[in-house]
Amino acid sequence: MTPLDPTADVLALTRALVDIPSESGHEAPLADAVEGALRALPWLTVERIGHSVVARSQLGRDRRVVIAGHLDTVPAADNLPSRLDGGLLYGLGACDMKGGVAVALRLAAALPAPAHDITYVFYECEEVAGDRNGLARITAERPELVRADLAILMEPSDAGVEAGCQGVLMADIAVRGERAHTARAWKGVNAAHRAAAVLRRLDEHTAGRITIDGLEYREGLSAVAVRAGVAGNVVPDLCVITVNLRFAPSRSPREAEAYVRDLFPEYEVEITENIPGALPGLDQEAAASLVAYLGVAPRPKLGWTDVARFAALGTPALNYGPGDPSLAHTAGEYVPVEQLRQCEARLMGWLG
Amino acid sequence: MTPLDPTADVLALTRALVDIPSESGHEAPLADAVEGALRALPWLTVERIGHSVVARSQLGRDRRVVIAGHLDTVPAADNLPSRLDGGLLYGLGACDMKGGVAVALRLAAALPAPAHDITYVFYECEEVAGDRNGLARITAERPELVRADLAILMEPSDAGVEAGCQGVLMADIAVRGERAHTARAWKGVNAAHRAAAVLRRLDEHTAGRITIDGLEYREGLSAVAVRAGVAGNVVPDLCVITVNLRFAPSRSPREAEAYVRDLFPEYEVEITENIPGALPGLDQEAAASLVAYLGVAPRPKLGWTDVARFAALGTPALNYGPGDPSLAHTAGEYVPVEQLRQCEARLMGWLG
Repeated sequence: MTPLDPTADVLALTRALVDIPSESGHEAPLADAVEGALRALPWLTVERIGHSVVARSQLGRDRRVVIAGHLDTVPAADNLPSRLDGGLLYGLGACDMKGGVAVALRLAAALPAPAHDITYVFYECEEVAGDRNGLARITAERPELVRADLAILMEPSDAGVEAGCQGVLMADIAVRGERAHTARAWKGVNAAHRAAAVLRRLDEHTAGRITIDGLEYREGLSAVAVRAGVAGNVVPDLCVITVNLRFAPSRSPREAEAYVRDLFPEYEVEITENIPGALPGLDQEAAASLVAYLGVAPRPKLGWTDVARFAALGTPALNYGPGDPSLAHTAGEYVPVEQLRQCEARLMGWLG
Repeated sequence: MTPLDPTADVLALTRALVDIPSESGHEAPLADAVEGALRALPWLTVERIGHSVVARSQLGRDRRVVIAGHLDTVPAADNLPSRLDGGLLYGLGACDMKGGVAVALRLAAALPAPAHDITYVFYECEEVAGDRNGLARITAERPELVRADLAILMEPSDAGVEAGCQGVLMADIAVRGERAHTARAWKGVNAAHRAAAVLRRLDEHTAGRITIDGLEYREGLSAVAVRAGVAGNVVPDLCVITVNLRFAPSRSPREAEAYVRDLFPEYEVEITENIPGALPGLDQEAAASLVAYLGVAPRPKLGWTDVARFAALGTPALNYGPGDPSLAHTAGEYVPVEQLRQCEARLMGWLG
């Protein structure tokens, strides 16, 4: 196990986190390191659930705040190890979201007696299907572990507050044809050729822009996978296009489903995932207090984040973390060192 | 070793061949049996190459004819052992092409002094990648063994003559985009959406119909696979469409490549396989004499067959064998007993 030193400088700590690879499903070494670092802090009670780690102060404060971040990253794209260039730290997960994880670990190590009780949650499998999500498992199996008055998800938000989040729907659109030997292709119906109409409709589709509490949620509908193929000499009888819809939190999953079905009425559409977003919730007291302290103008969160899981538990939640969210999942992702320090200092101030 | 009796009735012999399983790569027991049967015929010189067997008469005739068939079958589909139902013999390989192999073995046993010298070729691994093909190995290592004035490939052709064969080109067409998180899909370029243009062009493409020696070779261009997808929340930056072109034997592989590249000038096109067809060659004397004797109207062969390997050696070659070619590789394949007897009688007459 690579040891982590959460008393180190936040930049050094972020680098150390980036340099322990943790693609989804392979978080064990990083979870071990994080668990080890937290167990060394006597003011925290630590629990391990799968490859997720929960650490809580038990000071009997009036309020409890969750500070959460996921440990996993998308697959590497020749962007390891970390590399510091000027004031920017590059590397897989630097932005999404090991910078945020580093800030949270810094708070855990530096705040033996915070103003609010704190529950730190570091969890696995955020970048893959929801049924593997470590936070989902914790909220299902041990909801008492993550109950709080406010949850701060340290997802990259450019060191600003991104409120609420959009919903996510995944659907498989099946285009059917009829198999034939390619030497007599005209005897069949090529499902891949027919799929052109679906892909074209996606290409020409204009997504909605919906304003809630003064925040504009811009939606998106994307093909994220196309699969067809039986054998090299066979006209394929099936082409499946997987689409991903990001929908404003004012739409219900049911409305999102109808939206997609209405776009593709002549095809088989199978909904494989459909999770609601979270309304911004800035009218609630704990969230309003943090936003006021930070002195920033909240923006809408366009990506789905696990704030929705807290919203579903009735806990107001917002995204606040270092890194430009538009760099997430890009090979060139980075986090500005300045934002690491800023997030650390602000949260230290509010919680100290 | 199961002994084979090539003096038996052609139906009994076909059944015996079907009942010795010989999926590609597992032809040894059948090759042993065939070799044993041929070595018992003193008028033939027998050679074993891998699990292929070549047997030649050495009568000093003016002309030499190759009679060839592959020993292997596609994988079993619960269609063994053989089963006779009315006049149809069912079972794995009955159609493709143990019926043809049985006819060839009957000729070998019944014709100690044929009108032309005969080279019988029974070979392995026709149903798998070309680099394992037993005939390809023989033509590469021992071309003198298979030189002849005419080659008759006993592939199923409904007891008619299927002349020449089309060429096959495989290509990967890459459509590029730019990755982005689907929550901000507009920051990327969706390669799957862009692929609509390629698939549409394939859908609208009209393949050629080319007449050679009075035979119409109908071409075909089919997408046989489409692959795109990075992760469920990533706008894909690459969509690869694999296409299969069946081209008339009058086109060279080079022309076939230019044809595909000209159709998709704005995309990256990688040719992964490109093998020429075989001209019908019916204008050549040996082939013309056989066709005239059989009294059948030749048809064009649209699928690629090993006739092209003989054509590459300069030997005119045609397909003539029992069984409906559209039943090849189906679980319910069968060969009509009537066609077994007809092919046997006709070739016996021509060669006797």
